[in-house]
Amino acid sequence: MENRYRLLIETDDQKGLIHTVSGILLQHGLNIEQNSEFVEKESNRFFMRTEVSGVVSEGAALVDELQSTLGQSAQIRLQRQRKKRVVILVTKEHHCIGDLLLRHRYNEMEFEIAAVVGNYDHLADLVEGFGIAYHHVSHEGHTRESHEAALVAAIAPYEPEYLVLAKYMRILTPDFVARYENRIINIHHSFLPAFIGANPYRQAYDRGVKIIGATAHFVTNDLDEGPIIAQSILPVDHTHSAVEMARAGKDVEKQVLSKALRLVFDDRVFIHGNRTIIFE
Amino acid sequence: MENRYRLLIETDDQKGLIHTVSGILLQHGLNIEQNSEFVEKESNRFFMRTEVSGVVSEGAALVDELQSTLGQSAQIRLQRQRKKRVVILVTKEHHCIGDLLLRHRYNEMEFEIAAVVGNYDHLADLVEGFGIAYHHVSHEGHTRESHEAALVAAIAPYEPEYLVLAKYMRILTPDFVARYENRIINIHHSFLPAFIGANPYRQAYDRGVKIIGATAHFVTNDLDEGPIIAQSILPVDHTHSAVEMARAGKDVEKQVLSKALRLVFDDRVFIHGNRTIIFE
Amino acid sequence: MENRYRLLIETDDQKGLIHTVSGILLQHGLNIEQNSEFVEKESNRFFMRTEVSGVVSEGAALVDELQSTLGQSAQIRLQRQRKKRVVILVTKEHHCIGDLLLRHRYNEMEFEIAAVVGNYDHLADLVEGFGIAYHHVSHEGHTRESHEAALVAAIAPYEPEYLVLAKYMRILTPDFVARYENRIINIHHSFLPAFIGANPYRQAYDRGVKIIGATAHFVTNDLDEGPIIAQSILPVDHTHSAVEMARAGKDVEKQVLSKALRLVFDDRVFIHGNRTIIFE
Amino acid sequence: MENRYRLLIETDDQKGLIHTVSGILLQHGLNIEQNSEFVEKESNRFFMRTEVSGVVSEGAALVDELQSTLGQSAQIRLQRQRKKRVVILVTKEHHCIGDLLLRHRYNEMEFEIAAVVGNYDHLADLVEGFGIAYHHVSHEGHTRESHEAALVAAIAPYEPEYLVLAKYMRILTPDFVARYENRIINIHHSFLPAFIGANPYRQAYDRGVKIIGATAHFVTNDLDEGPIIAQSILPVDHTHSAVEMARAGKDVEKQVLSKALRLVFDDRVFIHGNRTIIFE
Repeated sequence: MENRYRLLIETDDQKGLIHTVSGILLQHGLNIEQNSEFVEKESNRFFMRTEVSGVVSEGAALVDELQSTLGQSAQIRLQRQRKKRVVILVTKEHHCIGDLLLRHRYNEMEFEIAAVVGNYDHLADLVEGFGIAYHHVSHEGHTRESHEAALVAAIAPYEPEYLVLAKYMRILTPDFVARYENRIINIHHSFLPAFIGANPYRQAYDRGVKIIGATAHFVTNDLDEGPIIAQSILPVDHTHSAVEMARAGKDVEKQVLSKALRLVFDDRVFIHGNRTIIFE
Repeated sequence: MENRYRLLIETDDQKGLIHTVSGILLQHGLNIEQNSEFVEKESNRFFMRTEVSGVVSEGAALVDELQSTLGQSAQIRLQRQRKKRVVILVTKEHHCIGDLLLRHRYNEMEFEIAAVVGNYDHLADLVEGFGIAYHHVSHEGHTRESHEAALVAAIAPYEPEYLVLAKYMRILTPDFVARYENRIINIHHSFLPAFIGANPYRQAYDRGVKIIGATAHFVTNDLDEGPIIAQSILPVDHTHSAVEMARAGKDVEKQVLSKALRLVFDDRVFIHGNRTIIFE
Repeated sequence: MENRYRLLIETDDQKGLIHTVSGILLQHGLNIEQNSEFVEKESNRFFMRTEVSGVVSEGAALVDELQSTLGQSAQIRLQRQRKKRVVILVTKEHHCIGDLLLRHRYNEMEFEIAAVVGNYDHLADLVEGFGIAYHHVSHEGHTRESHEAALVAAIAPYEPEYLVLAKYMRILTPDFVARYENRIINIHHSFLPAFIGANPYRQAYDRGVKIIGATAHFVTNDLDEGPIIAQSILPVDHTHSAVEMARAGKDVEKQVLSKALRLVFDDRVFIHGNRTIIFE
Repeated sequence: MENRYRLLIETDDQKGLIHTVSGILLQHGLNIEQNSEFVEKESNRFFMRTEVSGVVSEGAALVDELQSTLGQSAQIRLQRQRKKRVVILVTKEHHCIGDLLLRHRYNEMEFEIAAVVGNYDHLADLVEGFGIAYHHVSHEGHTRESHEAALVAAIAPYEPEYLVLAKYMRILTPDFVARYENRIINIHHSFLPAFIGANPYRQAYDRGVKIIGATAHFVTNDLDEGPIIAQSILPVDHTHSAVEMARAGKDVEKQVLSKALRLVFDDRVFIHGNRTIIFE
């Protein structure tokens, strides 16, 4: 049965890598549909994303052969094209989750929303109206630790590949982040690294900027400091109050989040230190 | 002799301001060609920019009448449409000064470049080739104070209305800034307030941003903190090294600087605390 | 009871108009919250949009006074700030209607969706899931005239102020357009006037453009020729097939449509011949 | 002596192409610095651009081996990285030529301006001030044929690789275009294919568009119909007269032209029918 696969390779750069890898793919009878490479000069690392079509009867054999040929410095992922299983976390704002629910319903992205978890119940009706399970896990009356334990209890049964913070407005502990390392994607409502932290639109208003933005990034333990996946901006002027900036910013936020998720779910993103290599 | 004037009024907001001002202009036989108003709600200040055509035989009389009618909280400027006299400061980079020299030669903006002052002589040939005086005022072997004294000695005879820092890479002292308060315009090579200070493109690379930018702003004593006039951006990706970001950024820098200068020279910019009100 | 109103005036330009109008508003005890004017030089027409707050006990009296003062060339609209009643027409595509349903549910725009009418039933579930009436008015087996008669029968009871064509893919007759003159807004999936007519993304692909776009405009009898309200664009390259351009274009289409509707529903748009004057 | 080369290959698609080509490069001791491929599905053509470093002692031998291996359908170009020799044609407008002269003076692009030819003498001083030869070849009193003969007489001695029409406002004959097939680059002052022909800003004003643009393209015999290299846009509104659109558009024109030239001079552009494949 012919399928389409994404092969992602990261390794120390050396002469002949493309020839070597393409030779192995050829031997396995796979056809290269799309191919992108990049060498990051400062670290001398080679990144390659290849879309192949064909029959991979023994996925592990292909990966094993690549691994033994390229050596220990190589990290190799082989992914069949399929929907990623996702749990989305929300607080009260509807615009990002609403956009994702519509895209999910009409198969606009390669993802399966397994469930939505919110620390308020404001969005339960919206989510359930789309036939998706909504878990209300309130933080009120809880320590951060006990709340996160409840979150994990709600999330874990779905075995998500990715967590999406669609305007989830609470800070996560290092333990929680470690549990889903490199698999949590957040939308921050500013053009990072400007206006880190709370109330970025108010900060933007006070600074008098002429452009506002939004940033989708992987979550690490440093607040708003994880690897950036996508950013976009919107011009503003003196007629925008902080509240109007926030309103206008919502449209950018949902665009940036969906763009970033599309890149991640299409297996186009490498994390390299605190930066991303993205083959669009 | 019929001319065109810009009337800029800033005052505490109150009912009937537009009616009052438009009545005085009518009495003086002036025709409103273009009119913009804005009320900044947090400070309750009213801003108005009016382009009028007609004969203002006694400019002071019009301003006096407006002032006595609007009261002491009002700040009133009346400017005949004419070229602003400007001195430009540079270091070694050619892209912003080159763009301004071309625009000056072909009357693309309302300014007269009286002279260019550089702390290196790299750009002397270019500037003089456009028939503009170039003063080389080296900072080498000087204290900051003695260098600035030499700068002032070079600049002052031209009696500039504005100083333009077209990639002038040295920090100015509070004394120097005070001498040209609200009249120094700088181009900063980042999307402020991100990446304040030295080497912003290196900072942007290290942070892994997907968008870089440039900011034109008035210079105050707080480095890179003055009121922003204009900003623009450029998408980048992992293939851009810090050097390539810097190269790509040059085009944005010169666009943003010329846009900001056009706004200032057309008397479209109010400074309001650390923000600008701009009637484009 | 204090309300907020939008006063829209269009008249032949003459000296003193702002003074005259602001005087009448002052006499009626109304406070100008926001004011914009523009003189279109080629036709010598004056356009003014004023947001006023206060009590308009006799709306007609104010309008009558303005009309008798400004004369017969003046067109005057006074609108209390309120939601516009809208019927939306769709065919099969979900992205624009989905976006509008979300914005409606969360009061993001000043409109009330009275009903959705589709020539297929594909979108009935989505629309009804948001608690909005869906009318399936198939065109199959109908002449254009009998289909439009059925459309009118479905639409008319709602007495809509505006019709929104949210990817309604059928051409409307002059009779239908005349019935809702200047009140039908369409989203066209190209950067008009490029690629008029059917299959614009295929046309764009064949022409090899590097940018695609979308255009929201009022509908007139000339296909894709009505006054443009808003446009936006998206960069594309050789890797985009016509199908991928169409997919990417959907995001721009829904952004442009919602931007245009916001402008119209906020009473910011004048139609002037085949152009629009918009006070943003 | 180690150099950097660009290898551009276009051929019918088949399995194993990347492996084959990379193998030949490896045998010749060349290192792949950057590599991009694309398969155009409709025509089943494979495009590849590879930057290699190393010593190509027998350039022809490498190309010959590739040609004999890939077969007759393959078109192969091998270019050492070096400045392209260019003649620029102008009429009266300064903004594009001014920008190019500055970039040339400071080595911002890989090109050598051999000469500038204008059908007026307006720009002679500017060009000669940059130390570049200016030829005034007036069209007045000439038939199109005799004028072009004079143009060719002025251009031919420079043996240019590319002709750049930097706001050259006259139509070229098929004979002239054929002489420099696929080597003439024009900047058109609209967002093609909208507003083909004369006075596009006036057309844009009359149509009431909210965005204007510029297009850089290869010149073919169909006016404004050649393969597009780059496009960019600028938002406008009702306050822009046709004249103001033209003024604002100049900045976009020079940006788009320099962007397109950079792509061409870096050997990043394939012409494929009436479209371009560009590896940025």
